[in-house]
Amino acid sequence: MNACTNDARLAWMALILSPGMGAIRSWRTMQRLGDAASLLTLPLTELEGLGLPAAAAQFVADGRALAAAEDEARKAEEAGVSFLTPEDAAYPERLRQIYDPPAVLWLRGDPAILNLPGIAVVGTRHPSAYGQGMAELLARDLAARGLVIQSGMARGIDTAAHKGALAAGGKTVAVWGTGVDVIYPKENKKLAEEILLKGGAIVSEFPLGTFPAPQNFPVRNRIISGMSVGVLVVEAGEYSGTRVTARCALEQGRDIYAVPGNVTNKNAWGPNTLIRQGARLTATWEDIWEDLPSDVRAQLTAGDESSPGGTASLFPENTAGMGEQERQVLSALAMDSAVQLDELIEKLEGSMGAAEIFAALFELELAGQVRQLPGKNYVRVMV
Amino acid sequence: MNACTNDARLAWMALILSPGMGAIRSWRTMQRLGDAASLLTLPLTELEGLGLPAAAAQFVADGRALAAAEDEARKAEEAGVSFLTPEDAAYPERLRQIYDPPAVLWLRGDPAILNLPGIAVVGTRHPSAYGQGMAELLARDLAARGLVIQSGMARGIDTAAHKGALAAGGKTVAVWGTGVDVIYPKENKKLAEEILLKGGAIVSEFPLGTFPAPQNFPVRNRIISGMSVGVLVVEAGEYSGTRVTARCALEQGRDIYAVPGNVTNKNAWGPNTLIRQGARLTATWEDIWEDLPSDVRAQLTAGDESSPGGTASLFPENTAGMGEQERQVLSALAMDSAVQLDELIEKLEGSMGAAEIFAALFELELAGQVRQLPGKNYVRVMV
Repeated sequence: MNACTNDARLAWMALILSPGMGAIRSWRTMQRLGDAASLLTLPLTELEGLGLPAAAAQFVADGRALAAAEDEARKAEEAGVSFLTPEDAAYPERLRQIYDPPAVLWLRGDPAILNLPGIAVVGTRHPSAYGQGMAELLARDLAARGLVIQSGMARGIDTAAHKGALAAGGKTVAVWGTGVDVIYPKENKKLAEEILLKGGAIVSEFPLGTFPAPQNFPVRNRIISGMSVGVLVVEAGEYSGTRVTARCALEQGRDIYAVPGNVTNKNAWGPNTLIRQGARLTATWEDIWEDLPSDVRAQLTAGDESSPGGTASLFPENTAGMGEQERQVLSALAMDSAVQLDELIEKLEGSMGAAEIFAALFELELAGQVRQLPGKNYVRVMV
Repeated sequence: MNACTNDARLAWMALILSPGMGAIRSWRTMQRLGDAASLLTLPLTELEGLGLPAAAAQFVADGRALAAAEDEARKAEEAGVSFLTPEDAAYPERLRQIYDPPAVLWLRGDPAILNLPGIAVVGTRHPSAYGQGMAELLARDLAARGLVIQSGMARGIDTAAHKGALAAGGKTVAVWGTGVDVIYPKENKKLAEEILLKGGAIVSEFPLGTFPAPQNFPVRNRIISGMSVGVLVVEAGEYSGTRVTARCALEQGRDIYAVPGNVTNKNAWGPNTLIRQGARLTATWEDIWEDLPSDVRAQLTAGDESSPGGTASLFPENTAGMGEQERQVLSALAMDSAVQLDELIEKLEGSMGAAEIFAALFELELAGQVRQLPGKNYVRVMV
């Protein structure tokens, strides 16, 4: 990176850190200006002539903007954080094409994966066992075929999506509504570390130290969809941020995929409504794969002549090495709804005692085939 | 009914009871002949000239066909069964328009309801609790609005649909694959009685005494869809007779509705696949109601000025639940001229960011309060 580019990068940073400057206004200013680096040398009148609000023009003209940018850059370096501006080749190309791309993208992890084709997986923070299972399963199957999984690392569907991608040894990008140094929700600290460890990335358009603020999360959603080739909606209620993401995806011309669900499940409202409006009904990874633009598919299969094999079936009969009792318990459980322990004992009465059922459940949980939910409810894991 | 019509009716009956004569061949014969009643007076050579198979021509020419028809008519009268032929005004008009309408329709109950608009509700014989519940609920809600519910009275979804219609005090038609005097499955004897008691009907194209035969059930399905305005598929596995019904519906130009379900439920395969192929995703009765041809809707609401109200719309128009941001955006828009997005962002600058404005516009569009015009121009809807 030469000094000139570096000045331009600092100029973008200085501009976005100025009061009242958002992404759209920053882009317009830089477009009018032509040469980003020159911003920092302009006198006040010319800055005002560019259309900057008075406070921002003042902030840039008297050098406070540059000082703030240099300070932010130094803090970033210390924290192992990098930042991308539109001057950088690594700035995500798809994001560049949306109506309101971020002016600066703070980043932890590998910038290269931001330009790989990905699917955004989004949904409610309070999914059912079905929704959670589907998010994890589809993310895993898509990641196994080389697609990057993009999401917001919120509780629920987002978390399941990132985990699914990691389970497949795939790459995943978390787009945060806080600074990339502010973990939220806290319980995802380990997940964030694992994302980075496995070659993924965490990005945000908010400066370091930005704490969670409700208005930042919907804004962040346009980045998730904007970076993606398509957006997969798993479960979402009638009033949810996922609707914002879906709307962004529509505006950005991204394909929308949705997992249908029982209409009696209030979180199926979102995907079912999207399907009614034209989103592609998605039951397996193939529904998305078959729909990918041919250049994207070519990119994914290049150098991988062995084809995306090893299909993870929706209903794996991965029962090899399993005892008879585990098999019985497993077949008495469902993937899309939890079975309460008492019910399970009732169901298996005659063939197994409660203690044997306990033991089998324990083995199955260890093997990752069964998950226990609060209240001694058990659900079969899809992956 | 005058003697002449009666002769024509008997001629249709005689023809369909002749060996090797099916619905399509019977219709073609009668079309060539022009005057149905004259069939019974034709000499053998002319019958053969009409294209009848030799055995059938012989059967008609030597009077056995007429004897069989008179015998069937007498038995029907004794059993309280009537029959409809294409000579009868009560013959269902919609059925007349399909490729292969029945030549004779045996009937118990009220023939008048066969010409009322109805929705066919079909699905698997082994539904989940969800499928069964949805079939019953939707049949009930549709029947309550005056739609006749048509189904096959098989176990599972069919039974639930008939029961739902009855629960609403509505009318329902059961199309059987056996003679209308042969109850199948046996456990539905009471249901059949109740259907008739409540002013419904049981119909079949098979003569009295026809016992269940596997090949008759798929054939029967074309009558269910053929009589309907649209076909609602609730749950159906990958290999099920419901696919036959759906295909018939498609060929007959009937609208197809399908209730989505969790993809982990194998019986959701049918409706989910139909939705993917263009069937209308159906969560409530309104999804069907809103889609009905306007003449059908007019027929249903005639004499019912109170309109079918009462259920929550998917996109309620109450501004009470509207957020502050939606309110702000709405007040920045006009009813008589469009506002361009950039202008809107400028207008709301300081109080809202672009992404928040997007989100609010999205909500307002869904609520039917804002319409988007080409070029990102927005106008307030006069509601």
